[in-house]
Amino acid sequence: MEYSHIFDYAREVDTILIINGGENEVDKTFFYLSEVTSGIFEGSALVIKPDSVKIITSALEEESARNSGLEVLIFGTRAEFMKILRDELKNVDTIGLNYSALTLRLYLDLLKMIPDKRFVDVSGSIQESRRFKQPAELNKLRESARIASEAFDAIIPRIREGITETELSSELVYQMMKLGANGPSFDTIIAFGANSSMPHYSPGNKKLKKNEFVLMDFGAIHQRYCSDITRTVVFGRASEEQREIYETVKMAQQQSMNIIKENVNGKDVDKVAREVIDSTKFKGRFIHSLGHGIGLDVHDHPALSPSYDFPLKANMVITNEPGIYIPKVGGVRIEDDVIVRKDGHEIITTAPRDLMEV
Amino acid sequence: MEYSHIFDYAREVDTILIINGGENEVDKTFFYLSEVTSGIFEGSALVIKPDSVKIITSALEEESARNSGLEVLIFGTRAEFMKILRDELKNVDTIGLNYSALTLRLYLDLLKMIPDKRFVDVSGSIQESRRFKQPAELNKLRESARIASEAFDAIIPRIREGITETELSSELVYQMMKLGANGPSFDTIIAFGANSSMPHYSPGNKKLKKNEFVLMDFGAIHQRYCSDITRTVVFGRASEEQREIYETVKMAQQQSMNIIKENVNGKDVDKVAREVIDSTKFKGRFIHSLGHGIGLDVHDHPALSPSYDFPLKANMVITNEPGIYIPKVGGVRIEDDVIVRKDGHEIITTAPRDLMEV
Repeated sequence: MEYSHIFDYAREVDTILIINGGENEVDKTFFYLSEVTSGIFEGSALVIKPDSVKIITSALEEESARNSGLEVLIFGTRAEFMKILRDELKNVDTIGLNYSALTLRLYLDLLKMIPDKRFVDVSGSIQESRRFKQPAELNKLRESARIASEAFDAIIPRIREGITETELSSELVYQMMKLGANGPSFDTIIAFGANSSMPHYSPGNKKLKKNEFVLMDFGAIHQRYCSDITRTVVFGRASEEQREIYETVKMAQQQSMNIIKENVNGKDVDKVAREVIDSTKFKGRFIHSLGHGIGLDVHDHPALSPSYDFPLKANMVITNEPGIYIPKVGGVRIEDDVIVRKDGHEIITTAPRDLMEV
Repeated sequence: MEYSHIFDYAREVDTILIINGGENEVDKTFFYLSEVTSGIFEGSALVIKPDSVKIITSALEEESARNSGLEVLIFGTRAEFMKILRDELKNVDTIGLNYSALTLRLYLDLLKMIPDKRFVDVSGSIQESRRFKQPAELNKLRESARIASEAFDAIIPRIREGITETELSSELVYQMMKLGANGPSFDTIIAFGANSSMPHYSPGNKKLKKNEFVLMDFGAIHQRYCSDITRTVVFGRASEEQREIYETVKMAQQQSMNIIKENVNGKDVDKVAREVIDSTKFKGRFIHSLGHGIGLDVHDHPALSPSYDFPLKANMVITNEPGIYIPKVGGVRIEDDVIVRKDGHEIITTAPRDLMEV
């Protein structure tokens, strides 16, 4: 990727500073613009100008940083970091910052470190740029989706009576990593029986019993890019009610998927799925948005949501994940990752979508 | 934990608002003060007063939130969220915020949502409180450390010629999850041979060869609490140089560990380890701090670092992890998790520390 394309979006500045704090304050945009393939880069920074990009980091990340081929400036102490920052920004008046990733604490520190600058929020421009995936990014996302899909195939024979949710979760992460994932893209959700009615359930010690739903929501990270897939199967034989829930969700996904292409509004895609569900006795049981963007973040922009008025564009990547949740009974969700195309879409997660009794 | 103890630290306010944004903007303090055991809680908030704590969240997390036993307020739209927030803060003038976790974007949104309030930074107080682990937190950390230690024992027989770094990494995560981890506490570092000279290396396709270093830096999450352990072994027979590096690091860890107890300054602990290494031919090869706090975050406060002047107190939990790194040759790090005690310390990671040839 040519990092300088960011200025096609952030036209109001000619310098962007990406600054990372601790582990919870590392801006994924750092990796988007530097493309460093290894390393964590806590407390590091990136100075981007139209004709240069420099990594400011500690000795801890020096080798990882140099492997990127970019210019690298190494600091030992906080004072050295400040000096490098001041030198690099010496002739700059206005600096673009990513307000969506910068903590208030880091911002206030920055005001003290370089008090003579004007700061501009370029988070909207960064978000806009990150929405449109470059060909290399699409390939990483396809690979990440392939890993998740194949892990689903591999996990099916391992679903057995008495296995716990956490055991199945560990098997699933293991399969993804064996298939090439750097790790899971988020904490795997495995929910048996009634637990599947909680969309954000954390797996516990519940043992699998005959004829229960097995909801599996998981994803891989591959070269920093995420996949996110959900499949729900029945262990044993599906009851009439289970089948009815499943087929309704599947229909909601299919019909909403069918309309995905460039210039269709995300909220209209959501609406198609929601209308399918709300026209059945499961009205009101679809309690979240239909989907979200996916990329370096597992929940990236844009969203497919009733409240998100946004026309999709080619090379955006989104999930489509309707669900029905009935407290104390159970839930079904089917989720796939989709690249928006000019004349349609490409579904990159390929695991089977028909109801499986395993 | 009694959530209201936070006001023993944040004495300047009687209301604290913890507010989460998207996946990269979820404040771990939300879990510290609510103790919700499942759920992700993006876009959710916590309003803490001396006699009440309320969770404001969406239907997505409703069941998880209610399982906590705390009062739960559910919103559907952003407008409903704002209305709940305004109602809950109606009679409050001054609100404590965690500036270390709140993004600048969320803060600016908050200024618009509740413009009539005074905001105070309570990040220092939260950090101070989170440094001192309660008995229940110590038990979670012990369990998390046990999982990592036993995973090391389980992984040793799986180290074999030709295995790749990513394969070994997947085996290690699998072992931790089988032993009870909810997941890895960070991206596992597995580095073979010369790759071990990069402290923050990401595992790749390198295949293990005879007589190489195998550096493994990994940890578990158990009930949201993290462990962090590093062991370095030699696959085959250790050369004289490998043995010398290893024994120097081990000595640095032992001698610095020996002095850990209440009221010892963290930078003095770092100094002991650094002097051991700098008195050998490996002078200058220990290129990071000796350790960091650990808890809900894998890199928590306080730190053992030359630049961090801070006396340790009982019930703080820290890592002790000296290392020697020689670019193009390799590196060794030995890392353990330690609870500071009044009269000494308790090392909670128990995997063997003597040089292993496997």
